[in-house]
Amino acid sequence: MGKKKEVKKPETKKVLIALDAMGGDHAPEEIIKGGLMATDDPDIEIVFVGQEDVIKEQLEKCGYSGSGVSIAHASEVIEMGESPVMAIKGKRDSSIVVGIELIKNWEVAAFVSAGNTGAVVTEATLSLGRKKGVSRPALGAVFGFPAGPILCLDIGANADCKPDMLVQFAHMGSIYMEKVFGIPEPRIGLLSIGEEESKGCKTVQKAHKMLKKAKVNFIGNVEGRDLSRGIADVLVTDGFTGNVLLKMGEGLGEMLLHSLKEAVDGNPKLNEAIDVLSPIVHRVLSSLDYTEYGGALLLGVDGIVVVAHGRSNSKAIKNAITTAKREIEQGVADAMKG
Amino acid sequence: MGKKKEVKKPETKKVLIALDAMGGDHAPEEIIKGGLMATDDPDIEIVFVGQEDVIKEQLEKCGYSGSGVSIAHASEVIEMGESPVMAIKGKRDSSIVVGIELIKNWEVAAFVSAGNTGAVVTEATLSLGRKKGVSRPALGAVFGFPAGPILCLDIGANADCKPDMLVQFAHMGSIYMEKVFGIPEPRIGLLSIGEEESKGCKTVQKAHKMLKKAKVNFIGNVEGRDLSRGIADVLVTDGFTGNVLLKMGEGLGEMLLHSLKEAVDGNPKLNEAIDVLSPIVHRVLSSLDYTEYGGALLLGVDGIVVVAHGRSNSKAIKNAITTAKREIEQGVADAMKG
Repeated sequence: MGKKKEVKKPETKKVLIALDAMGGDHAPEEIIKGGLMATDDPDIEIVFVGQEDVIKEQLEKCGYSGSGVSIAHASEVIEMGESPVMAIKGKRDSSIVVGIELIKNWEVAAFVSAGNTGAVVTEATLSLGRKKGVSRPALGAVFGFPAGPILCLDIGANADCKPDMLVQFAHMGSIYMEKVFGIPEPRIGLLSIGEEESKGCKTVQKAHKMLKKAKVNFIGNVEGRDLSRGIADVLVTDGFTGNVLLKMGEGLGEMLLHSLKEAVDGNPKLNEAIDVLSPIVHRVLSSLDYTEYGGALLLGVDGIVVVAHGRSNSKAIKNAITTAKREIEQGVADAMKG
Repeated sequence: MGKKKEVKKPETKKVLIALDAMGGDHAPEEIIKGGLMATDDPDIEIVFVGQEDVIKEQLEKCGYSGSGVSIAHASEVIEMGESPVMAIKGKRDSSIVVGIELIKNWEVAAFVSAGNTGAVVTEATLSLGRKKGVSRPALGAVFGFPAGPILCLDIGANADCKPDMLVQFAHMGSIYMEKVFGIPEPRIGLLSIGEEESKGCKTVQKAHKMLKKAKVNFIGNVEGRDLSRGIADVLVTDGFTGNVLLKMGEGLGEMLLHSLKEAVDGNPKLNEAIDVLSPIVHRVLSSLDYTEYGGALLLGVDGIVVVAHGRSNSKAIKNAITTAKREIEQGVADAMKG
């Protein structure tokens, strides 16, 4: 995934990616920084979407005066806590609405936002439209476990899911992992509370039956403890369970690092030990952090939309932009058309 | 919780606890060992339930020939993978059915099993009956986070929950944490995917509204990442989500320990560091391991039933027996009568 210096560089294929400059807990500073970091890749051009004066001020603060970026003005800002439906109805000149409009008008190839997830999902669905056969788009996140990457979806777009939605998630996940990660016939696991078909809530039981007949490589139910064991390439679940899992992983990572830090602070002798082991602990914990892998993917809408974590720092934003670029290059959007 | 040697010991109040000798991945060896370990507490007398010849053989292997234990013969064994309803219908002379019968007939004060959870829950519910106001019993597990213990329920008895069931779980959890852990007005959190009342699946949204009016100390929605932060004493969720969470915690712990071990095996210089830090990592991970706190409690049935993890070793079995004893002493069963 690193940049390769080639002797004979092929003609540049610039991709334009719109970035929501106003969304996220650390907007606009970290967003702008992350956007600029992404332009280290000469193939990426960023369109910052948001209040022009705010963006210009930040660009100046970063000492930026070069090329490779542009600004699409949007006068309004949708706050993190706003009701998605009300927000996108009321604020048609917000960075989220304007950014998605840029995709629709073919002015950019993708939109990246760390803002109000519900608003991004709702506006993208309404404005870009759903792909054929998809009743509800899903948010997917890739976790980079040592045993291999796993795409988990839905991680929060649909708190209530019907069985057929889970089957659609399986199809979308399969295409994604094949296209973007080059995995042939990705193994699809259904998150449940036991291996047997009869285990799980009714929705999962029905989805299991449907998945057995679906044209995907369904390997059956998987449990929470299998997640990190590399037994599946795609983990299918509803957006409630998926989101709970995601946030629990974050919490556990924080707890562990906090405990280790506390132990070390009280005992200088441990400094050396922690210097050696903390990179290992960090590496494991970072596999729980989907922002390391580039944010959440909105799958099933007609366009490429990447939702970064609300708490994203500049590095997470840069990773999300890289994800968007990868999706563009691999033609994921077209492949999903069915 | 340790045993105290007192100068003047009060008259012994022996409690009889039935232990399913045939249930669990490591039955009967680890179960019998764990049962014998529990009898180090002179107040505990174990009734091993299961095939008499098998139990006797194991007791002999353990070099046991003393007092403090007895055997209740049950000729049949319910396997871990059997359908609960079919199993308890078909095997009326199984250790699970016989063990629960012992509670019903007041021959023991509690029953502990690491066997087929569904069979234990179903048989206990049908045979002992539910407490007043409880439509469905729940399995609860206590996690010993550094910030304080938290009772999580349901962790697997009810994969599908209605809002009023979640409210009942809140009531049962509140009584348990007050009675057994001495926490006044336990703080009840509802597991969701955002703090706002409008967040979460429909069931959770409805439960939130009902909990606001319920006679418990409801603190609102909590997220996965708050779990370890000590913000609630009771975490209410459905059995599907709860079980997924539980097993994910197990998997992450395993993954982390595995990665640390791998790093150390390849580098002898790290031995010293890991000697120092691994107890800390272990302590944190053990807080995810409810067997450390004594198995899962079946709340809402008219009797004390503790379900140990299928993978229980002797220590986990001993802990589960200790939990049962604590429940008996604190009069949890009576308190729940309402």
